[in-house]
Amino acid sequence: MSNTSSNNLLVVGSVAIDWIITPAAERQESVGGSATYFSMAAGGLAPVQLVGVVGEDFPREAVRDLEDRGVDVDGLETIAGGLTFRWKGRYHENMNDRDTLETQLNCFEHFSPKLPEKYKQTDHLFLANIQPSLQLEVLAQMGRRPMVVGLDTMNLWIDIARDDLLNVLKQVDILMINEEEARQLSGEDNLFDAARSVRALGPSTLIIKRGEYGAMLFGPNEDDIFSVPALPIAQVADPTGAGDCFAGGFMGYIAKQGSGLTTVNLRNAMLWGSVMASFCVEGFSYDQLRGIEESAVAGRFERLVRMCEIPR
Amino acid sequence: MSNTSSNNLLVVGSVAIDWIITPAAERQESVGGSATYFSMAAGGLAPVQLVGVVGEDFPREAVRDLEDRGVDVDGLETIAGGLTFRWKGRYHENMNDRDTLETQLNCFEHFSPKLPEKYKQTDHLFLANIQPSLQLEVLAQMGRRPMVVGLDTMNLWIDIARDDLLNVLKQVDILMINEEEARQLSGEDNLFDAARSVRALGPSTLIIKRGEYGAMLFGPNEDDIFSVPALPIAQVADPTGAGDCFAGGFMGYIAKQGSGLTTVNLRNAMLWGSVMASFCVEGFSYDQLRGIEESAVAGRFERLVRMCEIPR
Repeated sequence: MSNTSSNNLLVVGSVAIDWIITPAAERQESVGGSATYFSMAAGGLAPVQLVGVVGEDFPREAVRDLEDRGVDVDGLETIAGGLTFRWKGRYHENMNDRDTLETQLNCFEHFSPKLPEKYKQTDHLFLANIQPSLQLEVLAQMGRRPMVVGLDTMNLWIDIARDDLLNVLKQVDILMINEEEARQLSGEDNLFDAARSVRALGPSTLIIKRGEYGAMLFGPNEDDIFSVPALPIAQVADPTGAGDCFAGGFMGYIAKQGSGLTTVNLRNAMLWGSVMASFCVEGFSYDQLRGIEESAVAGRFERLVRMCEIPR
Repeated sequence: MSNTSSNNLLVVGSVAIDWIITPAAERQESVGGSATYFSMAAGGLAPVQLVGVVGEDFPREAVRDLEDRGVDVDGLETIAGGLTFRWKGRYHENMNDRDTLETQLNCFEHFSPKLPEKYKQTDHLFLANIQPSLQLEVLAQMGRRPMVVGLDTMNLWIDIARDDLLNVLKQVDILMINEEEARQLSGEDNLFDAARSVRALGPSTLIIKRGEYGAMLFGPNEDDIFSVPALPIAQVADPTGAGDCFAGGFMGYIAKQGSGLTTVNLRNAMLWGSVMASFCVEGFSYDQLRGIEESAVAGRFERLVRMCEIPR
């Protein structure tokens, strides 16, 4: 449980500037991206190392925010004269569905992750949602097989980069996707069958992200199913990044423990994922995670535990 | 915990013959109705009394099935020369959405619940989903205010019989509805706000049924939120009646305890609801509940508990 090097957690993914429109409000220049959200969520739990790319337009304060959360940003490349990946989206009234209004890949188009030497022995790796070919590049650069590898992906890659994705999956312990993606990847309607099928592809553990319904874990043992609810939120400001923050809380806890994917670790990690996601959606960008007090996080964890407790 | 009269559980609702079409199979003459499903689920837990109406076409075996589950059917009226309420529906590929193809009210059109004398002192009452004016009639016939009154309703009544429904709600402890209905009734998008608003209408407790996502409890205390997952089912045969079986398991456990709506009772009742719903959807009609072994039910309850357990 001590912060030895074996608690390190490396994340590779997107770093972005979003333009978010919700029914209630709007924010241009909202710092986002899967690796950013992941890092801000995991930062309080374990020493995070971030690999990503930004342009010169990426705000310096955002880099400081990451550093303040204990994130090592030596792997965050800045392209001289380049622009950061930008995404513009509008949420529907229900705050779940959203339309992409615009995507500018910018410097992300030619992103080729380069791991600093010191990251190559890291024991916990999270491959956030980027092209499977880039995820393969990261795995190839690692000095040894990390103890725990987690993976996020999306419908697009299942669709157009399936072979690469299947190659990544062979080297992964945990896959975190949503129900739709699980069905698409496995060809199975039933989540049980989907979990069995995903397990046959490589990952021992499947996590199904269910948004406001929480998340479900299908662990290494056939019978090891666990369900965590989402904390009810008085006012959802912006759901962007909730899944990444879930992954950050989850992997952050696993790295903090440093003892792999035991049942105890997996279940508590699900709670930490849910807790970090709950903060995320209460504000735009990672506003609610910046400068967050450890006591606030612990308090919410206890609230979630109470929400799940079954008195006998 | 003994089966004294204070454990009795009265349900008033529909008794029906359904024609169910799923993507995989079809059953005509599938015995259904909210009170039937409720009774078959609650029967193993508490002595159930059923008030409903059927025609001469209602199968005798179904009445025996109810009696075999310990259900008192003295309140089940048979209309001479009448036909039973019939519903025909088709489920979509996802097994959640469904279209009503046909509804024949038949003897249900002029249903006026008549409580046998011996039911009027019953301590636990569930008003299954029927017209609010009939639910009011039932409440008026009770000899005294039952210790616990539960209520189900639907979008139609919220829409066209709101005043009657509001009158019923004033006399109710627990409201069980789905998310859409909670929003429609309360005018609140957020479930927190919906729960607060529902509480102001009468019920101390709100249960949001979420189908394959389980159910959520907003208890008498503002902070008392509990979430129960649905048990993952290898093969959903027919979702019809799942909500009614949830209500049956829930109210059956509350009646069995006979000690009202304590936090311990409410949370365990949520689990029993989830367990009974899981059996329901595995077969057509109440097939899986007929002749069910107590050990099978207990085994699934333990499985659900394990699914929720947070090892520390």
